[in-house]
Amino acid sequence: MRKINSIGYHTKLCAVIGNPISHSMSPAIHNAGYDALDLDFVYFPCEVEDVKGMLDGMRAMHNFRGLSVTIPHKLAVIPYLDEINEVDKHIGSINTVVKEGDKLIGLGTDGPGALKAFLDAGVDFNGKVVTMLGCGGVARAIAFTLADQTALSELVLLDIDADFLKGLASDMENGTDKKISSALLNEQALVDAMQKSDVIINCTPLGMHPREDATPVPQELFRAGQVVFDAVYNPLETRLLKEAKASGCLTISGVEMFVNQAVLQFEHFTGEDAPVEVMHKVVMEKLGA
Amino acid sequence: MRKINSIGYHTKLCAVIGNPISHSMSPAIHNAGYDALDLDFVYFPCEVEDVKGMLDGMRAMHNFRGLSVTIPHKLAVIPYLDEINEVDKHIGSINTVVKEGDKLIGLGTDGPGALKAFLDAGVDFNGKVVTMLGCGGVARAIAFTLADQTALSELVLLDIDADFLKGLASDMENGTDKKISSALLNEQALVDAMQKSDVIINCTPLGMHPREDATPVPQELFRAGQVVFDAVYNPLETRLLKEAKASGCLTISGVEMFVNQAVLQFEHFTGEDAPVEVMHKVVMEKLGA
Repeated sequence: MRKINSIGYHTKLCAVIGNPISHSMSPAIHNAGYDALDLDFVYFPCEVEDVKGMLDGMRAMHNFRGLSVTIPHKLAVIPYLDEINEVDKHIGSINTVVKEGDKLIGLGTDGPGALKAFLDAGVDFNGKVVTMLGCGGVARAIAFTLADQTALSELVLLDIDADFLKGLASDMENGTDKKISSALLNEQALVDAMQKSDVIINCTPLGMHPREDATPVPQELFRAGQVVFDAVYNPLETRLLKEAKASGCLTISGVEMFVNQAVLQFEHFTGEDAPVEVMHKVVMEKLGA
Repeated sequence: MRKINSIGYHTKLCAVIGNPISHSMSPAIHNAGYDALDLDFVYFPCEVEDVKGMLDGMRAMHNFRGLSVTIPHKLAVIPYLDEINEVDKHIGSINTVVKEGDKLIGLGTDGPGALKAFLDAGVDFNGKVVTMLGCGGVARAIAFTLADQTALSELVLLDIDADFLKGLASDMENGTDKKISSALLNEQALVDAMQKSDVIINCTPLGMHPREDATPVPQELFRAGQVVFDAVYNPLETRLLKEAKASGCLTISGVEMFVNQAVLQFEHFTGEDAPVEVMHKVVMEKLGA
């Protein structure tokens, strides 16, 4: 591992901002990646409230290269950036800022991180029906990315919150050319969606530690051959994934999306192929797995 | 030496800003100091033009603790700070910013660093006549600090530049209650000053690498027992110091001031007694001594 006294004039700075930030695994993941490739980068966490001041500082510090952005700043940073990826404008939030010359460019790697997890598992979206459970920020990122980047045939949106549901459904109808259907998440809507879906994506918090007994989908609704993804990664294998696997589904843990969002940030920051295994290992260690 | 992956939520950030900044020894000095005391701090260099943006960023980043400020920003930072030490207001420039709560406090450690070098060498200013050669930024810092902190009896200011000379002389007459005299630096003025001085301080660049043959004071003007300080530290022993020592003077190299300004910054940043020997050693290594 590189030492603190290696920091010098050529060192590029990266950071994660949020509030609180004490839980963030990002410094450990990114610094391990720099070390594995012997890159002259350093990454630190910053508790921040004043987003504008932070970004002014990032502009002023010539060697400041990249920023990971977490709760509650994923929307708040946008007005202070120079460019935002088209798909991220629809998503409405970003988790990454890269400085190119004197420009701050915002983009999201949560959606692409989820997509990479699907592709790494061999999933082909061509002509497939995809159901999203939950319509919050992570769901928006994944839904717009899949609509933008894949040839899925239909996206089914379900949420117990009518406003969230209507918001994402309406934004997706305006922002993509994919077929969108939506319904309030209740027993019948879930049965209907599960019957026609090839891919099921849980973006609700159901099943997250310490409520590990909860699950958004009764086991009897799974069909063998379905793909089930859970954005929850604590525990690594939720009840949802356990039961889906037992029913013959292909399952993907949210930890893959989590690692991939960091991997993609790393590649935006450094311009190098990320040492994925090293970064994955750090996450698994931090999660006690 | 602490490793990069020790950086986490509790890590305090410090930096040096300037433009250019590639020559700065400060990251090596401060990081070695943190390591010696096992303090959870990290220090990095930043090339900066936009001083206001930098300070806004420092305010926004809750774990940002201290800033070293070097050329060309030592005056430019002042309007953006909340408090300035009284003596530093007279000096008109600072080299240190410390964040206390939500306040940015500016102060200078060049003058106190020089004073500490004198005191460490056993010099007592009580009733002494002190001559300053040169009236630029470093001279201002040392002159105001000595006038403020010691019982010297008279300060003689000499410079070849009439505006610099008049500027410092007038500011010191207004800003201190010490006896100030001043004269354009020429042969006669130098002879007169050397005759009555107990302490001679060179703040001109004469004798600095690569013009090591130059010296501001002809050797025959020294008297045994005088104290001669040279703000130049490259070479460590200038021609001025060599000839003064040969004439029986006590000599002090500018490297002591340089180390001390960092030592005092370190103590302001961390609240701990600095590991002076460790920091001194880093400077000597960097200077190839």
